[in-house]
Amino acid sequence: MQRFFHPPVDQWERLLKRPTANLTEIEPLVAEVFSAVRKKGDLAVKKYTEKFDKVQISSLEVNQAELKQAQNEISPDLQRSIQSAKRNIEAFHKAQKTSKVQVETQPGVLCWQEKRPIEKVGLYVPGGSAPLFSTLLMLAIPAQIAGCREIILCTPPNSSGIIPAVIRYTASLCGIQKIFKVGGIQSIAAMTFGTESIPSVYKIFGPGNQYVTLAKQWATRYHVSIDMPAGPSELLVMADKSADVDFIAADLLSQAEHGPDSQVIFVTTEPSLLDKVQNAIEDQLMTLPRRSIAEKALEHSKLICLPTAELAQNFINAYGPEHYILCVEDESEYLLNLHNAGSVFIGKYTPESAGDYASGTNHTLPTNGYSKQYSGVNLDSFTKSITFQKISEKGIKGLGETIMHMASAEGLQAHKNAVSIRLKKISDGL
Amino acid sequence: MQRFFHPPVDQWERLLKRPTANLTEIEPLVAEVFSAVRKKGDLAVKKYTEKFDKVQISSLEVNQAELKQAQNEISPDLQRSIQSAKRNIEAFHKAQKTSKVQVETQPGVLCWQEKRPIEKVGLYVPGGSAPLFSTLLMLAIPAQIAGCREIILCTPPNSSGIIPAVIRYTASLCGIQKIFKVGGIQSIAAMTFGTESIPSVYKIFGPGNQYVTLAKQWATRYHVSIDMPAGPSELLVMADKSADVDFIAADLLSQAEHGPDSQVIFVTTEPSLLDKVQNAIEDQLMTLPRRSIAEKALEHSKLICLPTAELAQNFINAYGPEHYILCVEDESEYLLNLHNAGSVFIGKYTPESAGDYASGTNHTLPTNGYSKQYSGVNLDSFTKSITFQKISEKGIKGLGETIMHMASAEGLQAHKNAVSIRLKKISDGL
Repeated sequence: MQRFFHPPVDQWERLLKRPTANLTEIEPLVAEVFSAVRKKGDLAVKKYTEKFDKVQISSLEVNQAELKQAQNEISPDLQRSIQSAKRNIEAFHKAQKTSKVQVETQPGVLCWQEKRPIEKVGLYVPGGSAPLFSTLLMLAIPAQIAGCREIILCTPPNSSGIIPAVIRYTASLCGIQKIFKVGGIQSIAAMTFGTESIPSVYKIFGPGNQYVTLAKQWATRYHVSIDMPAGPSELLVMADKSADVDFIAADLLSQAEHGPDSQVIFVTTEPSLLDKVQNAIEDQLMTLPRRSIAEKALEHSKLICLPTAELAQNFINAYGPEHYILCVEDESEYLLNLHNAGSVFIGKYTPESAGDYASGTNHTLPTNGYSKQYSGVNLDSFTKSITFQKISEKGIKGLGETIMHMASAEGLQAHKNAVSIRLKKISDGL
Repeated sequence: MQRFFHPPVDQWERLLKRPTANLTEIEPLVAEVFSAVRKKGDLAVKKYTEKFDKVQISSLEVNQAELKQAQNEISPDLQRSIQSAKRNIEAFHKAQKTSKVQVETQPGVLCWQEKRPIEKVGLYVPGGSAPLFSTLLMLAIPAQIAGCREIILCTPPNSSGIIPAVIRYTASLCGIQKIFKVGGIQSIAAMTFGTESIPSVYKIFGPGNQYVTLAKQWATRYHVSIDMPAGPSELLVMADKSADVDFIAADLLSQAEHGPDSQVIFVTTEPSLLDKVQNAIEDQLMTLPRRSIAEKALEHSKLICLPTAELAQNFINAYGPEHYILCVEDESEYLLNLHNAGSVFIGKYTPESAGDYASGTNHTLPTNGYSKQYSGVNLDSFTKSITFQKISEKGIKGLGETIMHMASAEGLQAHKNAVSIRLKKISDGL
């Protein structure tokens, strides 16, 4: 781990930087797959699944029997845990519902804003070393609460051509009926253009490797929107001497085990913590099954001591962490001065794992400093707002003059006419 | 104008299509300007301003004297109108403020969501034939209400190197102090990278021509986000026999005068309206100053009669109009079945002009069918939501088991450890 003691502000840039993968190299591949899927539909999807996932799929959609069977394949303990997590995530996301905002801005001029669900959404859940059913909970639950009419799931098949039981179970539990055994670039292309089996959608959600990340960006060229730009997962822990170093070390390691490119940052105002945290990490690392992954992530992770709370707060805002654990005596000062973060975990009994799985908050969050301008996935991610207005005769008489002056000043006579023709008919008593 | 009588559903695709400009041709130019501005800052900005806007600018920022002087250069009537519009827009956007959403998802597990302003935002107001001060109102007012700390404005200078007085007046009125005399690609590049004079921002808002549109898309490669993808403005009017054809014609023309690429669609279930609306348009067109522009837009505009209200509603949802005027007897049925639109204008006294200028709703809206997944600019466009959680000793004891089962099932032992290490210390009484 790299250590920095009181780094001057003009040297922060290097500390704030994420290792950015250059995705231009894989652009030609993404373009090729998109073009093939657009032209050949299912045939191309199956071809690339065979090529990349090394498995032949005859029917892309998971059938009802496979869905029903899932329940028998996973332990009652895990089922109960997933149900508990679902209840919490549901409670938190249901609370995000907003009601119609309505204002009579001047007499007879009634304006309102309503949110309506995005009709068709596509969820992506990556495969890889373990089935990430928690991501499915985080996407499917708000999509259902928002009322999206068509919710589809794409996730890569394993080497036997099947979707892990826990993913099928979670999908069923969340009421997702349309699951497709397809991952990678070909799945994003399929949800963009639609194929014989896979419907096209308006917005695509979910994390993925660099191929999926670039494919999602590519999809935005074709009238599809995406949840947010993605990058490797990150955690910043801020602690003072009131914190428990074993907890801090465990939290930093929980981030480090995600992947070799995970970002792990420890910030403190207490110099003695640098040694203590590093020692605790080394102790706990020994017994980790994913030790070699965590070690790689730790190589470029940073332990930083800053001289004052104010500088620490500035640093954290400049970094804009995806996950931010705050273990200090004066929490409220840090929270008051926080501008940029995805999700914040406060106090010694609030590990990042809680939010990753089961406390209720969403774990699909902006990385790579994007918390400066992006929200994590939330209920509104699955809706769009529409404004409405209804103006009465009295209303247009009161507002007309203003509109006409402004339209004239912008040189838009027809805009003015749309008002004057109404005012004239009113005054003519027509 | 093109007419379609009861077009069958399988032929709608052609009617729903927007003429999409191919922007790839101008990509090399955008790339060149971005690269030059990144490397050479103000020098490059000035060079391209001279090249594209045919004017030499010595100081890019509008000075205090230019700001103060503005008030003397525009009529009191126009000032009062701008102030009235500002009051309405403020009232509607202030009402969109949401409060903290807080839920104790299970005992001792407290989760909440708060919105915080995006710290640095850049507003773009195009130049062109007339100064679009209304767009400045629509962007600056919600940015101020959201509490964005740094709000800058870029807008092209006129041929004398100055910014129109009405833009300077409106900026002052809205409390915007940093105005830069720069437009086009070079302004978007400057807000992306920052120059000696122009600060970089996190999010860029505002309409523009195809160069600005592509430049905004380009900016998203460099850690900047944008309000939405842009396209030519659109209006769809839905009317039945209860509507006033003169009003409909005036509204359609107010859209047609925007530009030759404006999209104008009239939908009805009443066959006799096709003739009547066309005649009214031809009458009103004669006296329009921007007649030649409107005529070009009308060439590809469409008058469509559909046999039933249900089909009309399906068509409107499939089109997803930016502006949607609804003049029918049974409004509520149409509103209930509406899924996709930017802003809706209801009833005979509600012209689109009202929302363009002064009723209170925002006029920066999704075009080109993007209302299916994008909101128009609103207060939330200038904020991002952050989630927080604080778990007590009791909370982690209640939630721990669930997290540990799920982490194990995903093969993430360190995630499990972050909980078990806490539970162990609690049970050991440490």
